[in-house]
Amino acid sequence: MLIDGRPMRTIWRAGAAAVEIIDQTLLPHEVAVARLADLEAAVSAIADMQVRGAPLIGVTAAYGVALALEADPSDAGLDAACGRLAGARPTAVNLAWALARTSSAVRGLPPEQRAAAAWAEADAIAEADVAACRAIGEHGADLILERARAGRPVNVLTHCNAGWLATVDWGTALAPIYVAAERGARVHVWVDETRPRNQGSALTAFELGAQGIEHTVIVDNAGGHLMQQGEVDLVLVGADRIAGGGDVANKIGTYLKALAAHDNGVPFFVAAPSSTIDWTLAQGVGKIAIEQRGAREVTHVTGRTGAGRLEEVLIAAPGSAAVNYAFDVTPARLISAIVTERGVSAPADLATHFGRTP
Amino acid sequence: MLIDGRPMRTIWRAGAAAVEIIDQTLLPHEVAVARLADLEAAVSAIADMQVRGAPLIGVTAAYGVALALEADPSDAGLDAACGRLAGARPTAVNLAWALARTSSAVRGLPPEQRAAAAWAEADAIAEADVAACRAIGEHGADLILERARAGRPVNVLTHCNAGWLATVDWGTALAPIYVAAERGARVHVWVDETRPRNQGSALTAFELGAQGIEHTVIVDNAGGHLMQQGEVDLVLVGADRIAGGGDVANKIGTYLKALAAHDNGVPFFVAAPSSTIDWTLAQGVGKIAIEQRGAREVTHVTGRTGAGRLEEVLIAAPGSAAVNYAFDVTPARLISAIVTERGVSAPADLATHFGRTP
Repeated sequence: MLIDGRPMRTIWRAGAAAVEIIDQTLLPHEVAVARLADLEAAVSAIADMQVRGAPLIGVTAAYGVALALEADPSDAGLDAACGRLAGARPTAVNLAWALARTSSAVRGLPPEQRAAAAWAEADAIAEADVAACRAIGEHGADLILERARAGRPVNVLTHCNAGWLATVDWGTALAPIYVAAERGARVHVWVDETRPRNQGSALTAFELGAQGIEHTVIVDNAGGHLMQQGEVDLVLVGADRIAGGGDVANKIGTYLKALAAHDNGVPFFVAAPSSTIDWTLAQGVGKIAIEQRGAREVTHVTGRTGAGRLEEVLIAAPGSAAVNYAFDVTPARLISAIVTERGVSAPADLATHFGRTP
Repeated sequence: MLIDGRPMRTIWRAGAAAVEIIDQTLLPHEVAVARLADLEAAVSAIADMQVRGAPLIGVTAAYGVALALEADPSDAGLDAACGRLAGARPTAVNLAWALARTSSAVRGLPPEQRAAAAWAEADAIAEADVAACRAIGEHGADLILERARAGRPVNVLTHCNAGWLATVDWGTALAPIYVAAERGARVHVWVDETRPRNQGSALTAFELGAQGIEHTVIVDNAGGHLMQQGEVDLVLVGADRIAGGGDVANKIGTYLKALAAHDNGVPFFVAAPSSTIDWTLAQGVGKIAIEQRGAREVTHVTGRTGAGRLEEVLIAAPGSAAVNYAFDVTPARLISAIVTERGVSAPADLATHFGRTP
C-alpha cells in the first residue's frame, strides 16, 4: 500500500542474506527502514514491536530462521533459532505456525542447503500472506458494500492496527476497507486509539490517511457511545489467535467493543488469515495465554513535541503500579462472522467451513 | 483527604472575597494552588478543568456567583453570572442545581446583601457536599465489606476520578473505599486510566497513593479481561447526571465497563450525591446532551519528561481528525445499585427511594 504516494510493503529482501523492514516503533512520526541481518535482529524486531501484527510477526520469524541458518545450519542451530523466535511474543499463533512450516521445509535437507531453502520458504510465506490478505479483502468488502446507503459513508469501527502494517501488504481487518474503496464505496473508519501502544491512532490512522480513506480517531472509551447513537454500521477487527470454536484473542479491549456491538445490534466481524486459527484449542476464554507487557507502556507515552523531537513523558501518578495485558479473548457468541481467505464463516461453523470435524 | 500527609480540600475560602483551589490540570505532577477572585476566573476554572467532577463543579459555580455579585449585585449581574457559569460545562446537572440554589437564595434580597448571602449559600453547599460524600462512603462501604474474604483484598474497579478531588472532600465512588479502609478492610483498586484526560491514572491513582490505598493502573481496554478472569469483585463509578429512571451519564467508557460487568456477573455500583439526579428526565440514553471537547485532548498528551519538564506531545498520526465525546450513558438495566447520601437503591426504585411518584 501507499506511503507518501509510493507503494511499499512492511518487509522485503535486501541483498542475499538480509531483509529490511519499516521500523514501526517510529511511526507515525518517522518512516524509517531497519535492516535485519542476523537472528538476534529478527528476535528484537519482533519482541520490541518494530514489526507487529500476527501475520507480519510470522513472516519475520520465517526470515529469522533463514538468517539464523546462514550462521549455523545445524539441527541445533535450527532448534535454537526456533526457540528464540517463538519466545519473542507468546500470543500470536502465526509465529509458531510460520516457524513450524519453515523448519519442516528445511530439516530434511543437508545443512549446506538449509539457508537457501529457508529463504525460499519465507518468501513463499510472505507471498501467501499477500494473497490471503487480498482474498480477505475481497470477501470482507462484500460485508461493507451490503451496508452502503446513498448519501452517507459506511461507518466501520476498528480496534488496534490490523492493516497492511500488520501484514506484508493489504492487511486483514483493513483489507476489506481498501477493497471496498477500490470498488467505489464511501467508507469512514472510526479508529480506536488502542492504548497502551496507540496502534490505532498512530498506525491505522497513518495508513488510512496515506491511502486517502476518511477516518476519525477516537479514544477506546468512545465506541460504545457511538454504537448507541447509531454511528457505527459494523465493527471489523483482526485476530492474534482464533480457537477452533470461534473465540478470538485480539488486542486488549476488543472484547469490550464486541459487547457494545452485541448490545446495540451492530455486526461484529473478525478478519484474519486461516493461519491464525488454532485447531488445538476448542475454546479461548481462560485457555489462551495472555501476554503481559511492561508497565511502562501504560505509565509513559512517547510522542512528538511541538519542536519536533520524539519524547517520552510520564502520564500516571508517580509511584503508582500498573499492569499491561496485551490481549483479551472475545467469546464466539459475540462474533457475527469470521472472514478468512477462504470466505466468511459463522464462528460456530468454523471447523465445518474448513472441512474439519468439529 | 491527604496530600503529602497533610489534610486538604479541593476548594476553600481565602480572605473575604476569593476562593482557592487545587489546580487539577497540573496533577499528578505538581500540587499547585490557584486563586479565584472574580467570575471569569471561576468560569475558566470550570471550563478548563482546573476543577472537575460534578460535585466540585457545582460548589465552584456557587462560589462563582458570590464572586460575580461582589462586582455586580444587580438582577442583570446575577443572571449574566449564572448564564456564564452554566455554559462552562454542559453535562453536569449539579452545576445547574447549584446555580439555581444560590440564585434563589439571593434574588429576594436587596443588592447590597446579595454577595454575603451568596458566600453563605456557597459555604453551605460545600459543607453539605462533604457531609453527603461521607454518607455515601458509609453506605457504599457496606457493599465493599460484604465482599471481604480472608487472605485477599476486595478488588474494586473504578473509572475516571470520582474521588475527593472531584468533590470538596471524601469523593463519591472512592468515598466507600476510604471508609471501608478506615473500618479495616483490605481494598485493592483497579484504576482505569480514563482517556483522553487520564483522570484515572493521574488523579485517582494520585489520591489513592496519597491515602495509602493499594491500587494498580490499567488502560481502559483491560477491564473486560480482568472481569473475565475473576479479578474484579465490584465496579464503583461516579455520575455526572442520573435520570429519574436510573440511567447514568458518566465519563466516556463507563458504559463499556457496565457491559463487561453484566456479562461476567460483577456488581456495578454508581455512587453520587442526590443532587446528581435529574428528575426532569425519565430516561438518559439519547436524552442527555453529551459534551464534545476539543480533538487535541485525543491527539496530544501532556506528561512529565525524564528531565522533569511538563511537555505536550502529539501521539496520533499527523493530520488525522479526532472527536472527543466526554460522557456516555449507561442504561439502568446494567446497574446493580445507586448509592447516594440517602442509602442504596436499585436504579428502577430510585423515585420510590426518594419518596417521589415514579
